[in-house]
Amino acid sequence: MTDSVLDYMTRLGRAAREASRVTARATTAQKNNALLAVARALDGARVELLAANEKDLAAGRASGLDDAMLDRLALTPARIDEMIEGLRQVAALPDPIGSIRDMRYMPSGIQVGKMRVPLGVIGIVYESRPNVTIDAASLCLKSGNATILRGGSEAIHSNQAIARCIQLGLAEVGLPAACVQVVETTDRAAVGALITMPEFVDVIVPRGGKGLIERISRDAKVPVIKHLDGVCHVYIDVAADLDKAIRVADNAKTQRYAPCNAMETLLVHADVADRVLPPLASVYRDKQVELRGCERTRELLGSDVREAVEDDWFAEYNAPILAIRVVDSLEQAVEHINHYGSHHTDSIITENFSDARRFLTEVDSSSVMINASTRFADGFEYGLGAEIGISTDKLHARGPVGLDGLTSEKYVVFGDGHTRS
Amino acid sequence: MTDSVLDYMTRLGRAAREASRVTARATTAQKNNALLAVARALDGARVELLAANEKDLAAGRASGLDDAMLDRLALTPARIDEMIEGLRQVAALPDPIGSIRDMRYMPSGIQVGKMRVPLGVIGIVYESRPNVTIDAASLCLKSGNATILRGGSEAIHSNQAIARCIQLGLAEVGLPAACVQVVETTDRAAVGALITMPEFVDVIVPRGGKGLIERISRDAKVPVIKHLDGVCHVYIDVAADLDKAIRVADNAKTQRYAPCNAMETLLVHADVADRVLPPLASVYRDKQVELRGCERTRELLGSDVREAVEDDWFAEYNAPILAIRVVDSLEQAVEHINHYGSHHTDSIITENFSDARRFLTEVDSSSVMINASTRFADGFEYGLGAEIGISTDKLHARGPVGLDGLTSEKYVVFGDGHTRS
Repeated sequence: MTDSVLDYMTRLGRAAREASRVTARATTAQKNNALLAVARALDGARVELLAANEKDLAAGRASGLDDAMLDRLALTPARIDEMIEGLRQVAALPDPIGSIRDMRYMPSGIQVGKMRVPLGVIGIVYESRPNVTIDAASLCLKSGNATILRGGSEAIHSNQAIARCIQLGLAEVGLPAACVQVVETTDRAAVGALITMPEFVDVIVPRGGKGLIERISRDAKVPVIKHLDGVCHVYIDVAADLDKAIRVADNAKTQRYAPCNAMETLLVHADVADRVLPPLASVYRDKQVELRGCERTRELLGSDVREAVEDDWFAEYNAPILAIRVVDSLEQAVEHINHYGSHHTDSIITENFSDARRFLTEVDSSSVMINASTRFADGFEYGLGAEIGISTDKLHARGPVGLDGLTSEKYVVFGDGHTRS
Repeated sequence: MTDSVLDYMTRLGRAAREASRVTARATTAQKNNALLAVARALDGARVELLAANEKDLAAGRASGLDDAMLDRLALTPARIDEMIEGLRQVAALPDPIGSIRDMRYMPSGIQVGKMRVPLGVIGIVYESRPNVTIDAASLCLKSGNATILRGGSEAIHSNQAIARCIQLGLAEVGLPAACVQVVETTDRAAVGALITMPEFVDVIVPRGGKGLIERISRDAKVPVIKHLDGVCHVYIDVAADLDKAIRVADNAKTQRYAPCNAMETLLVHADVADRVLPPLASVYRDKQVELRGCERTRELLGSDVREAVEDDWFAEYNAPILAIRVVDSLEQAVEHINHYGSHHTDSIITENFSDARRFLTEVDSSSVMINASTRFADGFEYGLGAEIGISTDKLHARGPVGLDGLTSEKYVVFGDGHTRS
């Protein structure tokens, strides 16, 4: 790492730590007004934003980025509208900071409860999509944290243009510029520095491909809120309502293929497989979904279904491909999910109370569902109002992470001169 | 690291991971019955426990352990009673596992809430006190986790004798032996292995001196629940009731000197310093507490008060020594605490509502108190029923860590064939 990048990141880190003391105390009105001011600044800078983005797109085309990458990179008037609307939505959310819960009298006479507080400084490392700059900055600011944002080098001009709008908004309400800092260098050493400064950064949230997240998890010296894989399952139980089963299994796979909460493996109880798999297969075939099955699946659906191999059970296709396995029992389904899954989101389709209860208890995933599509695993659908990511880890946040996941709780104690005896 | 130790620890880790699936599903009755069976086994093994402990004590005396270490190492009939009583208390606590909260209907029609689940496998690394073997094992088992316990080599015979009682209890209720495993080797490489097996161990809780905890935090590849320092403050505000101030400042320092929640620095507002410091100083002098003060403190109390240097403000004495500083404002007190403190426990003494409110909001510590002794920062005093340690980190558990700190929450979703549109 060059000294100059390390010096630069240390400067950002120190400034963020200082600014985090200000954001922690900022009033709800001040934070909301800042978010609305950023929204106005974006609205007033549409020409500059599109021009900056055009530079990134031109460079991207020149360097041979593929169409999917270029699409993620592109700002359009509609995407600017979405960023503005997102800021307004975050401003409208309740402020999590300072809320006190569970104050209770103890036998000693003291009252003890918990108060919600910001984490401090949050580092965000992300790729291509410039809108993450606004999404992440708004959630971190609303939750009283200072932020250091490090976008991809391919979006540097777009991100800098957005950063100028953020600065205008912060200045308008008198918050320090260092509340939200967008890293200005494209030197990759900046990421290495950001994720190894526990004295300045309290948590890292990576947003992007699996390679990025693996790299960051491996090298970080601060906690990382993340998920690596989304190998989600739907299990059609022996007691399933088959209409619901077909509806949910269709939706979980085909409503969108790319999201991490899309189903990748379908498990079907042997006693209902012959009734549910053929109609489901025809739904999938109509939508050009490639099926890969275990032996029993292929017996039912025909040998044009490709044989699923061990790797298929671990696979996150993020594509119109589905692995199907016939199982003999709920127990075998649970074992399959806990062994091959990624502890992300898994759903059982059943009308049987005891089967539902066992699945709920025994499946070790961040979201466990009964008779619902895995596609619901999402901060908005869960009522969090927004989402900075999804965590499949068990410590701190688990599942979709909203404002609360960017906060902590401290104990508060009220007494009247109480002493311990 | 020798291969054999690594192999041995890998074997323990794999067995713990498997056992954790059983503990996660164990019924409340099964877990409680196991705890009570261990209590009975301890009661029936008093002679063996004392004999095993005598071996450790003899070896300790031979190797020159100091009196404090030998005291911590010693088992006595009273300490065995305490372990038995502790097991009964943990058995009597409500089971945290499986509780579901906040189930709410969403606009889509699904119901979303959270269910409490075990973390999985917990590694405990501790020194000297053999009773930690029982304390930690009982909390981990009650919270549905498997445990690997690694005590100090100086307590190896005592810990093995206790481990045999635990095994008797587990066997009596039909739980696998690997639910609680006590490491049998004194090879230090075992610790290195334990804290770097994220595939088998979900969290490490170190219990012991600062050196141990620093080493583990630095080298661990799994999350660590810990606190390093307890530099706790009492701030006597300009609006303090001086009787309460003297009572609390006395208790916070002198009720016991060694605990991490004892006060190490007293801050006093300049406008009340001349009325409160002289009577307080005489309380401390009666108890042979050495005072170290800032210049203004020494003007008030006399030059036999030693001058406090920069290091004193950072010091955790755990001894009859107290640093005292006169400050000009609440703001200066808060700055001092956030700068020099360890984010453990800090208390303001004041009758002024606005001062109390500001202190509560602005002090960034795991416990913030008003008119109460810092000595209350404790799992039992907070009503947690038990405590596995105190965390000054912000992610996951913060403050005293009880059963809930050894658990996580997963999202649960109930639908009726719901699909996402």
